[in-house]
Order: sequence, then structure tokens, then C-alpha cells
Amino acid sequence: MTQELIDRIVKMTGKPAHPMLRRGMIFAHRDIEVMLKRKEEGKPFFLYTGRGASSGSLHLGHLVPFILTKYLQDAFDVPLIIQMTDDEKYLWKDLKVDETKKMTKENIKDIISVGFDPKKTFIFTNFDYMCPPFYENVVKVWKCVTTNQSRAIFGFTNEDSMGKAAFPAIESAPCFSSSFPHIFGKRVDIPCLVPCAIDQDPYFRMTRDVAPRLKYPKPSLIFSTFLPALQGAQTKMNASEPLSCIFINDTPKQIKNKINREAFSGGQPTVEEHRQKGGNCDVDISFQFLKFFLDDDDQLEQIQQDYTSGKMLTGELKQLAIAEVQRVIGEIAERRKQVTDATVEEFTKIRPLAYKY
Amino acid sequence: MTQELIDRIVKMTGKPAHPMLRRGMIFAHRDIEVMLKRKEEGKPFFLYTGRGASSGSLHLGHLVPFILTKYLQDAFDVPLIIQMTDDEKYLWKDLKVDETKKMTKENIKDIISVGFDPKKTFIFTNFDYMCPPFYENVVKVWKCVTTNQSRAIFGFTNEDSMGKAAFPAIESAPCFSSSFPHIFGKRVDIPCLVPCAIDQDPYFRMTRDVAPRLKYPKPSLIFSTFLPALQGAQTKMNASEPLSCIFINDTPKQIKNKINREAFSGGQPTVEEHRQKGGNCDVDISFQFLKFFLDDDDQLEQIQQDYTSGKMLTGELKQLAIAEVQRVIGEIAERRKQVTDATVEEFTKIRPLAYKY
Repeated sequence: MTQELIDRIVKMTGKPAHPMLRRGMIFAHRDIEVMLKRKEEGKPFFLYTGRGASSGSLHLGHLVPFILTKYLQDAFDVPLIIQMTDDEKYLWKDLKVDETKKMTKENIKDIISVGFDPKKTFIFTNFDYMCPPFYENVVKVWKCVTTNQSRAIFGFTNEDSMGKAAFPAIESAPCFSSSFPHIFGKRVDIPCLVPCAIDQDPYFRMTRDVAPRLKYPKPSLIFSTFLPALQGAQTKMNASEPLSCIFINDTPKQIKNKINREAFSGGQPTVEEHRQKGGNCDVDISFQFLKFFLDDDDQLEQIQQDYTSGKMLTGELKQLAIAEVQRVIGEIAERRKQVTDATVEEFTKIRPLAYKY
Repeated sequence: MTQELIDRIVKMTGKPAHPMLRRGMIFAHRDIEVMLKRKEEGKPFFLYTGRGASSGSLHLGHLVPFILTKYLQDAFDVPLIIQMTDDEKYLWKDLKVDETKKMTKENIKDIISVGFDPKKTFIFTNFDYMCPPFYENVVKVWKCVTTNQSRAIFGFTNEDSMGKAAFPAIESAPCFSSSFPHIFGKRVDIPCLVPCAIDQDPYFRMTRDVAPRLKYPKPSLIFSTFLPALQGAQTKMNASEPLSCIFINDTPKQIKNKINREAFSGGQPTVEEHRQKGGNCDVDISFQFLKFFLDDDDQLEQIQQDYTSGKMLTGELKQLAIAEVQRVIGEIAERRKQVTDATVEEFTKIRPLAYKY
């Protein structure tokens, strides 16, 4: 992701770049220029992203690609399609269908709380939406990829279920506008931009290989890095280790305690040593959180200088990170209170989106 | 298929057994007693069969399982579900989706012409019907079978497409009544009897393995043999060799010419030799056709005696076979003339069937 591209996005959208984009957390893309060119020419595209459900509340790491997606929706003013892969969860986990559906519904509420525009956002679950035009695209992708290729891309073994081997096409098919006739009518030529975490790249590399053979446009991609776990910058937040994560439903006090107690520090063992040698922002989780979410570049640079020089202590840095994470989670939690089953219905209903093409 | 079972079916249905059932062409079953017991106890079951589409008209060999199915529908007075695997054809053949859909529609018209009751028959195509409850059952089957098991059953290789590896579950899922809420409501416990040609057994053996794990009843099966090709009893009619087949849209004259010219004869090279040695009914295709379709047991026995003894000549036997095949095809062809797109609509519409449970 070059500075030139970021400047071009800022210029064409008239919106400031998201901190994650300015600071290298949105670090790579595939053919994003194709979408920028379309936007400049007044041609449509759409955003497509997704999520498998997890039990309990989403954590801040889960939200990173959705925060990026919301920024892109606001900046480019395009329709957004979100796939909830409840079928995938059912196939991979020891869960019943009803359990995955229930989890998925709660996850949808968390995702909606990131602030998506209901007039421009269609959220669907595979178990509910698998239907003629979407299924047709699934079958088309199935036909283009051999089991060998799929295994090479995704690492299946013959001991894995048939479903795991079949699934990649189901994540791939929503890249094609013909999967959504209620949104795109009969148009099959509208491409998508997929904001996602880097681990999803294999699905979309496969899709990009397949698209030309189906006479569909290739999806473009924009990748976010993982938000580090509280315990250190080399790991990612993992919901199965609750102390590694900050959840949407954590209270301000829980956020404060987690960061104070768990957030790995780049500071020195003693105040004296810290004043003398300074802290290491690269490994400090509180600083990493500020880097993801604090909008003010000047303030962030000042913090970096002060912490590196030893002028700022770990406790002070943690206070700043706590305030910022409380703000981010607080805004989402506030919206979350308003999200009901009816809101889910509003986002998941088969309907046209407010979209000119 | 024992005589005892056949007698039981005749007694409970009050309908004479179909010639194919009386004469060993319906030669095997799996757990058909379960369905007979349900019928005796007034408990519901349904019939499920299917077909992949082929180009052009169906031939008499294609019709054998459907003729069996119609007999079973009439005898047991139960709902019938027919799956058209247009997706399978697309995956296996060098065809476009639209081509498979068009072929499928024509095949549906041929199948309807066998004489199914529209009030009790639901025909669906996978491309059109893949939908939430059906898809859910597909995914459930996917989860229960490993790629290894699927390969062992169906003989896939890793060079085959992902779709071929995924497909078996799609043929399996209609065995479960919850795939059809418009017919069975919320009932998940209604089992099916699958009339099919013996080559489909692997799909249903897999389904019978999987069903208990999903807490669904196992399907029962009843198998028909293949109708021999005109050229001989060791081969089956094959649409890609038109001279091996008699098609629904063959005229009476074409039927006459095909049987006269192509039907393998069990007779002797000369009349003298035939009178002396007699003919061989076991390899004589004209006789085989009579065995499949001629209802009158006494007449068939007389023919067999006369041909075996040499009293009846090949030409005479062929005349009888021509008349019988012209009658069978003629009845279907007559109905076929009345079948329009609206008839297809009637059979494929999502609707309840006339069915008490």
C-alpha cells in the first residue's frame, strides 16, 4: 500500500484516510487501482467481506476488518455485502446447526454496531441465503477448481469432511454481482473490493484465478493486519483465550483492568531504568492499540517520542491506551444497545440497496 | 426381491404387481419391509427418485425407473419427489448452465408424460431449488462424510473438480423430509423409498450410513435392472448411441424399423434351423422387451414356449415386441403432446401435495 495510493484515495473520496491506512496496518492490496479507476469514472463497485461466527461477543481484533470496511463504505459510498459463514462454523466445529445460527445472529448484532448504513448494507447467512443465483455461482466455481488445487490452496486432507473441501467456493461466489439479483438486477459485471484480514487471501486468489474463466470481473483486495493480543505483538487476539482480548461487551472498568494487568509493556523494569533507556513502542501493546485507533498523528508522534525517550512511563501510556480503547468500544457498545432482532431483520432482508448504477 | 414380499405388496395395495416386479427386473431392495410396515400401520412415507438431464428425448431405458415409480405411486398412493440434477450435468459435462437448464426442462416434460399425478408429485431442479432447509441437509451430510470415504464410494480422483467431490450430498439430502417444508411441514421423521437403477446405490448406501447420525430415518431402496440395448442383453440403452435406443419421440414406424433392423435375435440363422433348434429367449431383445412391458403372463409364457420350441419365428416375435413397445411409447407420446411449460410449472411449483399425514 503506497503513500501515492493513499493520497489518491483521500483526494477522490474527500475523506481523511483511516489511521490504520495511514500507519501501515492496511498494508497490502490486490488491484485496488481497478476500483479507484472505476470510482473516478463513475462506474459502480461494491464491498464484500464476511465472518464466521464465534460464541460470545466479538473482540477488538475481529472488528479491525469491519472498522476498515466501514471507513471504505463511508469514503466510497458503495453498497456493502457481508457474508456470515454459519455453514463453515458448523462444518469446522463440534456444533449443531441451531447453535451456529444463534451465534451468528449475535455476531451480526455486533457487526451492525460498528456503524454500517442499513440502506447500503446487506448481511446474509449462508444457511439462509443459499439460493438459485448464489448457488449457481458456487457450482460454477466448483467446476473450475480441482480437488488437487483446492487442497494445495487450503491444506485439506482426505480425512477432512466433504464439506470442508466444498466450502471455498461458497466464500468465493459472493464476489460476483450476479449472486445478488435483488441488489444488482441482471448486472454480472460489477466488481467488488474485499476488505479482509490477510489469512483470507487464499480464497480470493482462487476467486481471481477463476473469475476470467467465468467471464466475471476479478475481485480486488485490501488487507488488514491482525490486532495483537494483550500479551504481545507476535500473537493475535484469540477469543478462546479471553484474557488476550478486549470484547465489545467489556465494561470500561474491565478494559482498564485488562490493559493495566495484561497489556505487554515495552517499558523497563524500573522507573529509573525506564527514564534512562526509554521504552520500546514496537513491542508495547498499549502503543500498538493507539497506533490502530488514535486519530491524531501529531499526538501519536509525541507519545512515541516521549515513551521512547523515557519521558513517558508505562503507566501513563496505559492510561492513554485505556481511554482510546474505551472510546472505540464505548461507541460500538452504545450502538449495540440499540440493535435488536428487528435491526438484524432490516439488514438481512432481501431488498434493493440505496445504490445508483 | 422375494415372491413373499411381492405377494405382500399386492395384498396391501390391492393393485396387481407391475410386470417388471413379477418377472425379476425389480430384483433387489434395501429395507423395503420398513415402508410396507409403515403403510400397514397407516404411517406416511414418500417416494424419491431423480434424474440427470440428457440432451434430446428420453429413451425407454431412462423410463424404466420412472415406470416403476409410477406403479409405486399408484399402488401406495404416496407423494413423490423427483430431483433433476442439472448441477451434476453441468459439473460432469462440457455444458453451460443455461444448456443444462434447457435440457432439464425437456427431460421433465418427458418424465411427466410417464403419467405422474400432479397433485402428488413435486419435481425440482437443483439449480432452482437449492434453498435453506434443503441446503442445511446438504451441509449436514457434508459434515458426516470424509473426502476419503466419498472417494472410496464414488471413485473420484484429486484431478476431478471440487464440485464432483461435493455433489454426493446433494443427491442424498432429498431423502430427508425436512428438505421439503412445503410438503412435510416441520416433520423430520418421514422416511422415503427410493426407486432407482442399481448404479445409484452408492449414493444411498452413503445416505443410509449418515441418516442415523443426523437422527433422520434411513431411506429404503428398490432397484430396477437396466433395459438392454437393441444390440444385445449384455449392454444397456445408451443415448449417445441412438441406434441402441428407442426414444419417446420415435414414431411407430421408427420403432418398427429399429426393432426389425437392430434388435438382437435369439433365433437361428435359417428358418429350417430355427424350426429344428428353436430360439433363445434369454438373449433375444424382442423377448426381453415383452418381458419388461407385456402385462399378460399367460401370453408371455406361450410366446416363450413357442419361440423356444421353434414354433414361433423371429419375425413373428419382433411383430409382437413392436406392437408392445409402440403401445408403451404411444401412451407416453400421447401424454407428451399435452405437456407444456405450464405443466412443468404445475409440477415444479413450491406447494403442498395432496397428502394426509
